[in-house]
Amino acid sequence: VSDVRYHVDGRLVPASEAAVDVRDRGFVYGDGAVERLRVYGGDPFEWAAHANRLSRTCETLGFERAIPPTDDLRERVAETLDANGLTDARVRVSITRGIQDRGPTPDPRVDPTVVVTASELPRGGTPGEVLWDEPATLRTVERRRAPEAVLPAAGTQADLCSVLARQEADGDEALLRDLQGTVCGGASSDVFFVRDGTLHTPTADLPIPAGITRAVVLDIADGESFPVEAGRYAVGDLRGADEVFLTDPTWEIRPVGRVDGTEKPVGPITRLCARLFDERVERVHYDRSD
Amino acid sequence: VSDVRYHVDGRLVPASEAAVDVRDRGFVYGDGAVERLRVYGGDPFEWAAHANRLSRTCETLGFERAIPPTDDLRERVAETLDANGLTDARVRVSITRGIQDRGPTPDPRVDPTVVVTASELPRGGTPGEVLWDEPATLRTVERRRAPEAVLPAAGTQADLCSVLARQEADGDEALLRDLQGTVCGGASSDVFFVRDGTLHTPTADLPIPAGITRAVVLDIADGESFPVEAGRYAVGDLRGADEVFLTDPTWEIRPVGRVDGTEKPVGPITRLCARLFDERVERVHYDRSD
Repeated sequence: VSDVRYHVDGRLVPASEAAVDVRDRGFVYGDGAVERLRVYGGDPFEWAAHANRLSRTCETLGFERAIPPTDDLRERVAETLDANGLTDARVRVSITRGIQDRGPTPDPRVDPTVVVTASELPRGGTPGEVLWDEPATLRTVERRRAPEAVLPAAGTQADLCSVLARQEADGDEALLRDLQGTVCGGASSDVFFVRDGTLHTPTADLPIPAGITRAVVLDIADGESFPVEAGRYAVGDLRGADEVFLTDPTWEIRPVGRVDGTEKPVGPITRLCARLFDERVERVHYDRSD
Repeated sequence: VSDVRYHVDGRLVPASEAAVDVRDRGFVYGDGAVERLRVYGGDPFEWAAHANRLSRTCETLGFERAIPPTDDLRERVAETLDANGLTDARVRVSITRGIQDRGPTPDPRVDPTVVVTASELPRGGTPGEVLWDEPATLRTVERRRAPEAVLPAAGTQADLCSVLARQEADGDEALLRDLQGTVCGGASSDVFFVRDGTLHTPTADLPIPAGITRAVVLDIADGESFPVEAGRYAVGDLRGADEVFLTDPTWEIRPVGRVDGTEKPVGPITRLCARLFDERVERVHYDRSD
């Protein structure tokens, strides 16, 4: 018997009883917003950025006024961590439009369903041991990312595209493009590559995951005065790059060892970004001396 | 206290207890297949076509070998109807990839979650009384349908596009186009229009709902030797049409009274199609004299 407990609609319940109504629109239509958080030393990493994006996703879905205040949400995350004795963990917060039984048409009176789940995930900074076994393999898939005109680029529960891309990638990380063939990123990760000493990443104008880890890497690069370019790239740019890496709340910074059969070294800029990322985590979450 | 019962994972349970695990991939990613059925006189309308499409959707999702046989599914629908004393009803059957806790990557070992819900819906054929109050208003929305390269055109739980389109249409039925501007249909309905005596409907090559009711109307038209054309049309074709109607398992055949502000009469071909539809339902489901 497991003692794991999740937070469902304001209450901590045993994992085996953590369930949502079959009429909940999160189940029926994927009609909800999601954030996947990383927790270090008991505190969510970049909470403000996650709370902000969650709020923006709910705004896109049209029910941002119905969601709990950010302090309330943070409290639910803290309670979930406490209940499970977790300090280094991954957390999933999902807010759906709740139970409404009138077809796809949203009812403006929203009683949202809030679910928080958490599981242990050791702190990174010891590459190769826990967060990932080895550099990732990227495989270009035929499945494409939807443009904004079809679906919001990120943050909703209706993320079947990532599922189908992963299925097609058959064990590798899927490299997704938009309908014009421009590289967007991985199924659950953002992509960076290095060419001639400059860090490149797909622009946020594209339908990309645009994760919080990506934003942190851009901030780190800015602080170090690395040359950075956010733009539109082809798969060939990645294949021809000097270094390639992925960012994701679980993997943090994961080097790519192979792009569609082209081998890549784990290069110095990838290593330096990973080290600077670890230092930031250490400074913000663990170093209580200051 | 309600006596309503739903079928969840092989068991009939009170509606208030009908729930899915928060880790179920139907909830987490919209990773499941769905059919919305119409039941007349205790029997699902066009069961074979629905079962076939459900199977094809699960094939697209890669877990068709894990789903229950069609007779088993039909039995669950029958048990749900019996438990609720329903003979004229609408039914929703959903089959998800089940509980898997490893990110978007699907695990090939699938223990699917099967949910059947049902609610009363009176038999149609008495227009204006129950299934819909008046002819529909169609409003062209900016939200677009995803092409197949992004998502399967129909049949999955990740149907947030329809939700956002309905929200944008603000009480009307949303008229959706693909990214090239070609008309696809309504948020939850297929569209037909009449011009110069010929029935037109978007081709199934487009990302359209392609509902079973649409197929029945095409079959009826074929039986009556109506001229029919399935093609690619612009919104202007609908605005300029002599008649426009929608098909959907709930509405059956619902005339459109207005397309983006252009009024439409409820014309003779719409009326005739609705009458022939009613006659087919009567013959197949209620007329036990033969």
